[in-house]
Amino acid sequence: MTDDDRFRRGWETVGRINGPARDRQFQSLGEVAPDFARWIVESAYADVLSRPQLALRDREIATVAALTALGNAAPQLKAHVEGALNVGLTREEIVEVIAQMAIYAGVPAAINGLQVAKEVFRERDEG
Amino acid sequence: MTDDDRFRRGWETVGRINGPARDRQFQSLGEVAPDFARWIVESAYADVLSRPQLALRDREIATVAALTALGNAAPQLKAHVEGALNVGLTREEIVEVIAQMAIYAGVPAAINGLQVAKEVFRERDEG
Amino acid sequence: MTDDDRFRRGWETVGRINGPARDRQFQSLGEVAPDFARWIVESAYADVLSRPQLALRDREIATVAALTALGNAAPQLKAHVEGALNVGLTREEIVEVIAQMAIYAGVPAAINGLQVAKEVFRERDEG
Amino acid sequence: MTDDDRFRRGWETVGRINGPARDRQFQSLGEVAPDFARWIVESAYADVLSRPQLALRDREIATVAALTALGNAAPQLKAHVEGALNVGLTREEIVEVIAQMAIYAGVPAAINGLQVAKEVFRERDEG
Amino acid sequence: MTDDDRFRRGWETVGRINGPARDRQFQSLGEVAPDFARWIVESAYADVLSRPQLALRDREIATVAALTALGNAAPQLKAHVEGALNVGLTREEIVEVIAQMAIYAGVPAAINGLQVAKEVFRERDEG
Amino acid sequence: MTDDDRFRRGWETVGRINGPARDRQFQSLGEVAPDFARWIVESAYADVLSRPQLALRDREIATVAALTALGNAAPQLKAHVEGALNVGLTREEIVEVIAQMAIYAGVPAAINGLQVAKEVFRERDEG
Repeated sequence: MTDDDRFRRGWETVGRINGPARDRQFQSLGEVAPDFARWIVESAYADVLSRPQLALRDREIATVAALTALGNAAPQLKAHVEGALNVGLTREEIVEVIAQMAIYAGVPAAINGLQVAKEVFRERDEG
Repeated sequence: MTDDDRFRRGWETVGRINGPARDRQFQSLGEVAPDFARWIVESAYADVLSRPQLALRDREIATVAALTALGNAAPQLKAHVEGALNVGLTREEIVEVIAQMAIYAGVPAAINGLQVAKEVFRERDEG
Repeated sequence: MTDDDRFRRGWETVGRINGPARDRQFQSLGEVAPDFARWIVESAYADVLSRPQLALRDREIATVAALTALGNAAPQLKAHVEGALNVGLTREEIVEVIAQMAIYAGVPAAINGLQVAKEVFRERDEG
Repeated sequence: MTDDDRFRRGWETVGRINGPARDRQFQSLGEVAPDFARWIVESAYADVLSRPQLALRDREIATVAALTALGNAAPQLKAHVEGALNVGLTREEIVEVIAQMAIYAGVPAAINGLQVAKEVFRERDEG
Repeated sequence: MTDDDRFRRGWETVGRINGPARDRQFQSLGEVAPDFARWIVESAYADVLSRPQLALRDREIATVAALTALGNAAPQLKAHVEGALNVGLTREEIVEVIAQMAIYAGVPAAINGLQVAKEVFRERDEG
Repeated sequence: MTDDDRFRRGWETVGRINGPARDRQFQSLGEVAPDFARWIVESAYADVLSRPQLALRDREIATVAALTALGNAAPQLKAHVEGALNVGLTREEIVEVIAQMAIYAGVPAAINGLQVAKEVFRERDEG
């Protein structure tokens, strides 16, 4: 594959996960590190997240769980709660994934993750 | 529910995830903190992990992802790679979940997680 | 114990630690995850934090230390600086616990923890 | 204070916490970074841990809690479980501090901390 | 060295790294923990960061990398992106250091670090 | 660039950093996740670490600092202490980088990092 093939493949997956927020996120990072913004599309979204060996729904469970557990990446967790909804997880399932992190990363990490989810849900309801 | 109901419900879920390793783990922790060992069965396995709102397969994806990302709980990651196999994930899916953590928690966390998975797979092959 | 006994026991301990903030915190989390909010009262506050084997003052030292060291749970640290004052620690002792974390988790974690404490102290003074 | 005053003051506190293990630890680190070994005695043990504003028993509660929660410093946690016993905490209290970390840092961190405590207790029993 | 010598030596290094922000930072921390503010100048800036065994430019690379990777100390990362510029790193080099952390600590940590750098660069441009 | 170009470019950089350990590491990971092993060479070593915008010596300072601070990747830290020596850092400089992490990530992280460095230095001396 050439780099352009990889970019196209990754950009399509960014869209499936992030929806219309894709352009703004790419531009914001591109203002300070354009090569790195492109690298994320190619190396993360094309090479890893687009692989057919795991369903995108399962990948978003893993990502929401990890970002909740790490507890230091609220903007990315918010984007991936959106992403989880976009690829078919229900609100109830997302709440379960995040709350479960209380067991593996502690109650504060789970509470803070749930506040992020609450914000996403409210924004969707307010449309 | 009484505490005994909760223990029974949790113990059944421990068995579905951890299989025959269940007894040894419970005993090892019980030697130093028996009340806490029982609390884990009741509060983690019965109250959280047994909830029907999320499939056990999905829960193990979340747990393997989080433990890989945190990177400081190798014994528990090993138990949950076993658990992921026990509840129906394939080896290939588990490898994808762990490798994906390179994006969210860095390459070293993913490599170290994959070494744990390799060990579990080898032990299964050697029987 | 039944779940209701556990809730009552836990709720009383939440009150001793968190004081009047208890209701708002429980409601805020309950909007997105009501079962989980109840679980925290029962499994964390009743089953663990209410145990007589360790004084509540000692428990709050441990919690303030851990939340400072982890460095990714500012809202919870704030609540437990309040809690530490509520169960009898002096401001000076709390400052020592947090500053000591510079040794175990680095200077930035300690500085950020002290800024949280400063905010709590100021609110009390203005209160 | 001169640096020598600080070293003496710190070295005395190292002894109260670490007991006879003090010499071996200082020498092991000194083989690769002698200035840094001395800095720890002066800047950590003299300037911070020797301050009278917080009792040494309270300081060890904080340290055991933080090291358990961080989960990536098993040798230091072991030394401070020893230290906690040396300054007057009971085994039961230490177990409570570590188990409580399940709430703030997750169950795996608490289990791994308890295994360290179990090892210390066993070594003392075998004496 | 006496404590006053150490303070003077450290204060000079704080100035080389932090520039005119030095006074405000020292005062802000001093309001809640004056002894600790002084300890940072003496034990961190004088005893460690002023050592001639490593160039200040190299030290700032290490600090920016670590704070990006830890991901829970945005105010300190901001101060050290300033510091890195003050001791001679170019914007391009700083962007490379932070982006490289995607490999070792994950993409979210790198993105969040780059947003901090973007803010510093913008303030300088507007300044 | 094609994927083969990227692999060649990355493989050359792996060799500059890791020296003869390169083959064993690649093979060990390849046994469980061959695509991921190749991805690391292409996406980490070719696309990021081979970029001319930052000297390889500076990149290794950043990596050693970050891995020490994170404290949960001892095998990778060992490889990059080797790498730091391979690209021209002195033992004294490496010790300074690691010890400095006491300020940003705590004393235990620095001590554990220095033990890794000591092991590398001893192997070289015995080598």
